[in-house]
Amino acid sequence: MASTQVDVRADVRVRTDALRAFGIEAFAKAGLAPEGAAAVIEVQLEAQLRGQPTHNMGGVPGYARRMQAGHINTRPNIAVVSESACHVQVDGDAGPGQWVSVVAMGHAIRKAKEAGVGVVAVKNSQHFGAAGHYAWMATQADVIGLCTTNGGLVLAPWGGVTPTFGNNPLGVGVPTGTAHPIVLDIAMSVVAQGKTSLAIAEGKPIPLGWLMDKRGRLTTNPADFAEGLGVPIAEHKGYGLALIMEVLAGVLTGAGFGHDHAREGARGSGRPPESGHFFLAIDPRMFMPIEEFRARADRMVAMIKASERAEGTREILIAGEIEMRNRASNTAAGSVPVLPSTFRALREYAADAGLTTDLTPV
Amino acid sequence: MASTQVDVRADVRVRTDALRAFGIEAFAKAGLAPEGAAAVIEVQLEAQLRGQPTHNMGGVPGYARRMQAGHINTRPNIAVVSESACHVQVDGDAGPGQWVSVVAMGHAIRKAKEAGVGVVAVKNSQHFGAAGHYAWMATQADVIGLCTTNGGLVLAPWGGVTPTFGNNPLGVGVPTGTAHPIVLDIAMSVVAQGKTSLAIAEGKPIPLGWLMDKRGRLTTNPADFAEGLGVPIAEHKGYGLALIMEVLAGVLTGAGFGHDHAREGARGSGRPPESGHFFLAIDPRMFMPIEEFRARADRMVAMIKASERAEGTREILIAGEIEMRNRASNTAAGSVPVLPSTFRALREYAADAGLTTDLTPV
Repeated sequence: MASTQVDVRADVRVRTDALRAFGIEAFAKAGLAPEGAAAVIEVQLEAQLRGQPTHNMGGVPGYARRMQAGHINTRPNIAVVSESACHVQVDGDAGPGQWVSVVAMGHAIRKAKEAGVGVVAVKNSQHFGAAGHYAWMATQADVIGLCTTNGGLVLAPWGGVTPTFGNNPLGVGVPTGTAHPIVLDIAMSVVAQGKTSLAIAEGKPIPLGWLMDKRGRLTTNPADFAEGLGVPIAEHKGYGLALIMEVLAGVLTGAGFGHDHAREGARGSGRPPESGHFFLAIDPRMFMPIEEFRARADRMVAMIKASERAEGTREILIAGEIEMRNRASNTAAGSVPVLPSTFRALREYAADAGLTTDLTPV
Repeated sequence: MASTQVDVRADVRVRTDALRAFGIEAFAKAGLAPEGAAAVIEVQLEAQLRGQPTHNMGGVPGYARRMQAGHINTRPNIAVVSESACHVQVDGDAGPGQWVSVVAMGHAIRKAKEAGVGVVAVKNSQHFGAAGHYAWMATQADVIGLCTTNGGLVLAPWGGVTPTFGNNPLGVGVPTGTAHPIVLDIAMSVVAQGKTSLAIAEGKPIPLGWLMDKRGRLTTNPADFAEGLGVPIAEHKGYGLALIMEVLAGVLTGAGFGHDHAREGARGSGRPPESGHFFLAIDPRMFMPIEEFRARADRMVAMIKASERAEGTREILIAGEIEMRNRASNTAAGSVPVLPSTFRALREYAADAGLTTDLTPV
């Protein structure tokens, strides 16, 4: 028992292929089509490889339970509703958002390769995981990628207290030459709700500035989480950005938006979220040879890395740099660190669902 | 003299057509081609009509002086370098950024109308004024518009103290039905440098959080402005956004970026800024009839306006709403309020340059 307690209080490392097999087994048992299971697990596993504390393998049990409960369509017809030289409109048929989004970003990249730019609007989808994944996909195809989504309500308009926007993220990826690709993935709140709930799950205090209570007052009380509000970055600026993301992902796509969605905390309620996503891909070759663009992006990165440092700063970092380094070292190791609370949840789900994949830490 | 002092301590109202005539006379005298003079003045005057404290008519003397000094090309060949179904690359030939940008956003809108989306990259341009203007232009053409620019260096990477990015703004416009168009115009710093220098010009204190000294420490000392740094919104998030804007406006366009530019305060030095701009227009009709999009945008606005208010909030505002209301009332009045420091600067310039336009307040 002592050793188990040590296990679950510190990060454990688990083999990447074991996590992949676990996820695919879990989703197969939940009825998800094999192609979808592979896509969703790849998105969640990539977040784990990048060391993202949220949107990683910890989400798998929840997704599998929602599939089993019929809240996610496990046999969706992910359909092209309309298409032109530079756009695709996709109906996700209530399938897993990650699967829908891998398909959708693929369309955007293809259009960008063919026409220079691709705009893809997705309706009738679900939570798509980490925005950074699709931005990163674009960089791997030598195009600039941008994406956002809406979903469960987290943010109120500035000055208001009625939840009206998802914690809508912005993902942007920029291909580079020898530097790590630039991958920005930021939510329009000070911290992602997942980080707050993770802090609660890990028994850590909620820092002041992360959460507002239902009256719009800053709070550190975990009890305020269920009915509380996220704090938009930079006050009216974060509110304005969240509004634009809601327009791009919801109003423009034909998806639900604003009050069409339930609160984030009510995600398991079974109410169809009708989430929408927006993907944009831009091929730099419209403007210069790709080698020139890569060299210019590398030069931008080099300028930043060479910045004189403020007192107390050890290293200037580029958006996504830590994540790309984590990915490289975890991929080389063939295993990834898993948070104790996540590891517990995976093992509990495996026991509940009767999964056979061996999740023993390395 | 007493009455003059009263005049210059409170806002004065000046007739819109007098301000327009003043600007056109100033630019004509500085050698600017008539088409360019009309474009630049319209952009600056619209900012005045919207009640923006910066990027308005107060900038006219500085632009005219830079034209006279040969730092802005008054007879530019604003040229299309490359073009496809959905993109245009523009060389601004060191002309006034507003003129170049009105042309460029026009290209983006035209492409969006023809192909669904238009991406326009501009190199070899100069300061383009208020980003919101071009976003608003898009809304008037029933398309979603997005723009950004780079320019004189204001921001350091997070953790660093070397100025590496302009105070790169993001402008986004969304057409609506009966509601005011949504027009977001935000800089990636807590406040625009123009607001800080305006506070200094108006003899007001600089609030803590607006400015960092050259070592990256927050300061309220106006003496730190010349060598100081802007404060990025939301720390690493604002830094990440500024980097993406620098990529879109600079790296992608073929313009100068990062250290290619001088510090913002050195703008008058004569060093060609080689600024770049990025414009994107998206036609919602790719995804639904425009009437449906307008109705959905109106519904989004109505949800926000109906939000329960936090204590102390009188009204929930939409991005650009105050500005659109100002524009409507100032347009109806035929005159606009002008800040005392701005009014003084205009009259001083008129006297220096021997302009004949009557700027007597109404």
